[in-house]
Amino acid sequence: MAAAVRWVLVAAVAAAAVVALDNGVARTPPMGWLHWERFLCGTDCAAEPDRCVRYRDGMERGGGSRGPGAGRGALRCVAGLRPELQCPPALLPGPSERLFTEMADVMAAEGWKEAGYEFVCIDDCWMAPTRDERGRLQADPRRFPGGIRALADYVHSKGLKLGIYSDVGNSTCAGFPGSYGHYELDAQTFASWGVDLLKFDGCNAGSLGLLGFAYMQCSRVQGCSLSRAARIAGPSGVFLLLSQLVIGNFGLSWEQAVTQMAMWAIMAAPLFMSNDLRRMKPEAKWLLQNKEVIAINQDPLGKQGYRDKSFELWERPLSDRAYAVAVLNQQEIGGPRNFTFSLTFLGNGLACNPACSIQQILPTSRDWGVYNWVSSLSVEVNPTGTVLLRVVPL
Amino acid sequence: MAAAVRWVLVAAVAAAAVVALDNGVARTPPMGWLHWERFLCGTDCAAEPDRCVRYRDGMERGGGSRGPGAGRGALRCVAGLRPELQCPPALLPGPSERLFTEMADVMAAEGWKEAGYEFVCIDDCWMAPTRDERGRLQADPRRFPGGIRALADYVHSKGLKLGIYSDVGNSTCAGFPGSYGHYELDAQTFASWGVDLLKFDGCNAGSLGLLGFAYMQCSRVQGCSLSRAARIAGPSGVFLLLSQLVIGNFGLSWEQAVTQMAMWAIMAAPLFMSNDLRRMKPEAKWLLQNKEVIAINQDPLGKQGYRDKSFELWERPLSDRAYAVAVLNQQEIGGPRNFTFSLTFLGNGLACNPACSIQQILPTSRDWGVYNWVSSLSVEVNPTGTVLLRVVPL
Repeated sequence: MAAAVRWVLVAAVAAAAVVALDNGVARTPPMGWLHWERFLCGTDCAAEPDRCVRYRDGMERGGGSRGPGAGRGALRCVAGLRPELQCPPALLPGPSERLFTEMADVMAAEGWKEAGYEFVCIDDCWMAPTRDERGRLQADPRRFPGGIRALADYVHSKGLKLGIYSDVGNSTCAGFPGSYGHYELDAQTFASWGVDLLKFDGCNAGSLGLLGFAYMQCSRVQGCSLSRAARIAGPSGVFLLLSQLVIGNFGLSWEQAVTQMAMWAIMAAPLFMSNDLRRMKPEAKWLLQNKEVIAINQDPLGKQGYRDKSFELWERPLSDRAYAVAVLNQQEIGGPRNFTFSLTFLGNGLACNPACSIQQILPTSRDWGVYNWVSSLSVEVNPTGTVLLRVVPL
Repeated sequence: MAAAVRWVLVAAVAAAAVVALDNGVARTPPMGWLHWERFLCGTDCAAEPDRCVRYRDGMERGGGSRGPGAGRGALRCVAGLRPELQCPPALLPGPSERLFTEMADVMAAEGWKEAGYEFVCIDDCWMAPTRDERGRLQADPRRFPGGIRALADYVHSKGLKLGIYSDVGNSTCAGFPGSYGHYELDAQTFASWGVDLLKFDGCNAGSLGLLGFAYMQCSRVQGCSLSRAARIAGPSGVFLLLSQLVIGNFGLSWEQAVTQMAMWAIMAAPLFMSNDLRRMKPEAKWLLQNKEVIAINQDPLGKQGYRDKSFELWERPLSDRAYAVAVLNQQEIGGPRNFTFSLTFLGNGLACNPACSIQQILPTSRDWGVYNWVSSLSVEVNPTGTVLLRVVPL
């Protein structure tokens, strides 16, 4: 009964934001995985069977003959077991529930959960094009045949939490039903499914006022994430939501990946990966599961970092009077560049007063030893790369 | 005597462009290494000893004590053997001759020469700030104590060729003396040093007319390369000079590196790497030394590729009626994307008429087998990546 009351309260206060945890407010940035940046909305079942595997009973793999599609694992339409799955549904929008159960499997099995990544998050395109006869949002029945409740149960059985997506406006960014005018109902629906987190998007919201309203409500809720609105980190549990981490995908060089991880830590930004955890290169996994970087990101002081005046030197106050310091090389050409900076003014003059120990965390772990207040430090940074340090006053 | 006459002729006709080869005109795009994109102009000897090693007799490595610079191999000024090298010359412009001898060593020893990379090219900043008493360009005596002639001899002893840099205008891009008004003298100087190739830059040229003049002269000379002017590939030995290959540096993801290599091959562009051959990751070396891609780049038909109308499908006619075909995925987010295209119209309807065999070259080598004229082909391309194919009519 207590739990039910809590739900009603949360739903009434927090519009379409949902919380299933007891502590109410997140004091460290949430961590998890979100499907969007890697898997987007459109999924061609024939070309991309591993994102649309629920269609498999309506498909079978093509033969081994020479010719178009041969050897590519392409799917051909055959008579399916279920009529609605029969061909051709060549291009259908959205991810399938199998994508999320597989990600949950990998997150639980390969160290992601232990590293702190706890949310498995559905983004846009999960819905059916219309609400049900009672006005409730509903998952696309072909791509989520088990429904979101069953998916949440599965994710919970792995010791993880499920995130879902809605939009503060009349429709989502991809054109599915928005929550405007249905905030309470949608919150109740998500709660009834056991959803743990909401990404509350800002497409088609019409005015910034609506976004502001959503933001104010949202800011009181665990892990609530609001796209398209800047957030300031702090013990209120509200964090600057930078974009999804795309480390492990195709676009970043190694140096750029290091910079992304370091800056998300400096900014106390939520760590939501969007990649294919089933196919990760070891170095991307090393970076995303790096305990020391994550410890900075999750530092309980909850302060957001800021840029020093002189060049691309960033710092973030941490608990126990420590500081995270990031040195970026924004130049794209040339070779490694040497950056020298005085330790005197670091952390408003407090970080190395009278002395400090300096530990390098990225791009490689390294002990720099003890420095005093009037020392300067020289670090070599690759183009587009970052050196991330942890400075502890002595 | 014949060689000397050839030199004079070349110098008179070709302004500041220089050639030491007998065949006169390059029929395939030149290949080599150029210092610019990776090593630029400014070199801090203290921070970057491996680019400025000629100063070593004026420097020694710092001690092992804790403190600034400790453990970093930083250099401290000490009394040098040669007075002009004494401290502090903290920041001095330009690369040193050791950079080029080391690159020549690696090019000869580690398969680069065998792969076709034959030029070791000096870019801007090699000169002393003024011409000598007879008006001749001269190398900076501290950074090139042996002089360019000795460097050319060294490079030749490795079976490689030396390239040098000048500018058609009053000064180079970095502010060193330009060749305007000294075309013949500079050509004679370069020839007397045994230089094999000139990068003839276009900074401070004042008007496009001067560039056009330089272009017309330059186009008759082996390997002559003219920055800032578009060139069209063809059996005339003039090639579109795209920028330097930066594969092996810090800025490119793997997919972007594949795209660079594939597109340089499609465009019949000169392959001039600018990277640190002394420190190459194996996959970068694999890509830059890939025999099949280089064979497309160097195809003797000498035609430049072009884009198909529909999407990022590029093709280049090769000798023996073959075609190189590149499929780019320009999208930066999402996952691998499927591109399907008809073979009917490939190569103006000739590539697969009545049938063709298709070999994939990048991102991995793979035999696609035999297709006929009315087939279509589906390839999966990573975001920002490229699939490069070789299509041979049967």
